[in-house]
Amino acid sequence: MFDYATLEALAAVIDTGSFDAAAARLGVTPPAISQRIKALEERMGAVLVIRAQPCRATEDGARLITHQREVALLEAQLAPADMPPVLRIAVSADSLATWVLPALSALDGVLFDLVIDDQDHAHHWLARGEVVGAITADPGPVMGCDTVALGRMRYIATASPAFIARHFANGVNCAALQAAPALQFNAKDRLQEDWAAMICGRPVSLRAHRIGSSEGFVDAALHGLGWGMNPEPLVRAHLASGALVALGPAPLDVPLHWQSLRRLKTPLGPLSAAVRKAAKAVLL
Amino acid sequence: MFDYATLEALAAVIDTGSFDAAAARLGVTPPAISQRIKALEERMGAVLVIRAQPCRATEDGARLITHQREVALLEAQLAPADMPPVLRIAVSADSLATWVLPALSALDGVLFDLVIDDQDHAHHWLARGEVVGAITADPGPVMGCDTVALGRMRYIATASPAFIARHFANGVNCAALQAAPALQFNAKDRLQEDWAAMICGRPVSLRAHRIGSSEGFVDAALHGLGWGMNPEPLVRAHLASGALVALGPAPLDVPLHWQSLRRLKTPLGPLSAAVRKAAKAVLL
Repeated sequence: MFDYATLEALAAVIDTGSFDAAAARLGVTPPAISQRIKALEERMGAVLVIRAQPCRATEDGARLITHQREVALLEAQLAPADMPPVLRIAVSADSLATWVLPALSALDGVLFDLVIDDQDHAHHWLARGEVVGAITADPGPVMGCDTVALGRMRYIATASPAFIARHFANGVNCAALQAAPALQFNAKDRLQEDWAAMICGRPVSLRAHRIGSSEGFVDAALHGLGWGMNPEPLVRAHLASGALVALGPAPLDVPLHWQSLRRLKTPLGPLSAAVRKAAKAVLL
Repeated sequence: MFDYATLEALAAVIDTGSFDAAAARLGVTPPAISQRIKALEERMGAVLVIRAQPCRATEDGARLITHQREVALLEAQLAPADMPPVLRIAVSADSLATWVLPALSALDGVLFDLVIDDQDHAHHWLARGEVVGAITADPGPVMGCDTVALGRMRYIATASPAFIARHFANGVNCAALQAAPALQFNAKDRLQEDWAAMICGRPVSLRAHRIGSSEGFVDAALHGLGWGMNPEPLVRAHLASGALVALGPAPLDVPLHWQSLRRLKTPLGPLSAAVRKAAKAVLL
């Protein structure tokens, strides 16, 4: 079996970013950390740490850290740990901005490492074995995972009144949609083009500002930079006050799911329950 | 010289993520896009596009796109463009959450592509030639760039009253800081450890939740997940209402700078002026 002190040293180097900081965290000398990493790399026959500022894990290194975290999580069921176990989970930015944190704060004695990605891609992190659970639009299930439907997140096409007066004076039609600047979360975000295609009845290519922040998206709409599909819970107050206006009657609903590793079902139980409960309060 | 229609095809493939969508955007057939990319790859003697879902640029491809965008920006000074030029700039998440968007909304006829990174690392994007400007803690200047001081962003160590009652009942001392869960933006974020080191008078290793969102950071503090260094403009109202409490009298001030490519000084002039003005309204 592995020497888990060695795996802990590896996790500490990646977590803190340097051999010195890892040594300080574990209360040993930097040469001791260096030796452990070297021994582990020799045993695995692979480089595990990219020595840079900060240190990063290679793919092999990341796999070992994931394994160490899983074992720590299982161990925490048996005996109190001196270091709380780390739960790495993938969440969509819009879920984080609207309902995930209350769920996480219901748990105690664990640390969360949130990987923030587009809801259409969060499950890839799970498939690659880099997280123990994911909030994702993909119903899956990813192999070895359980999946639970959480409800639908409603997206509303929104813009500021000044933006609408300028770009949609003749209504929200196809020509206007192609000319007006849109917002896009990142290269993978297709929500705006999906909605525009629904309005036009054919695929549409938009020109868009790219802003990878849920709140930044709403702020950009408020400041008149562009129109975008915003999660209803994030714009409810702005729609009520008139600071933002819905571009059309048709919302887009995205069903969300909680997928988590079946082999960690017991230790992940409280988290799964908290996620379901918090989602129920906000999603449709 | 380059055939710029070819470079435009490359930019469209990366921007839209697929050959089909790029063809739709440029009003040509997918085989025409495919041919242009192939011709460009043959001329450069390098793969420029990683054919995946979505398509991604190789390093060589990204360099060409940056060049194409620069030329488009310079061209826009001479004649109206059918496609607005794209300004790719690196911003720190905390700046985006507090003062950057009003600056961007003051400009017209350009699209922004925001690269969001830690303020201590935003300038690396500039040094690698991937952005035309960066809001960064690094005074630089990066080679070939002009730098302007924008003012200081004030960070305050904050937590919820319930969190303080539980973890800092005997005051904010070194032992309590090492035991209480902290928040960390990402592996590169050292603000919490810098502040803790200031309190303890020696380097401190913290255990932290990792949450890469400025607003998520504030929300996590409000929900009692951990304590963290939050930008003063984002927590001012919470400190006034008592929903969050400052952990100690000592804030941390981070001076911010605007660095931008000197060779694009003229076309970037209006953006540089807007950034300076918006920063002045919020930073110290």
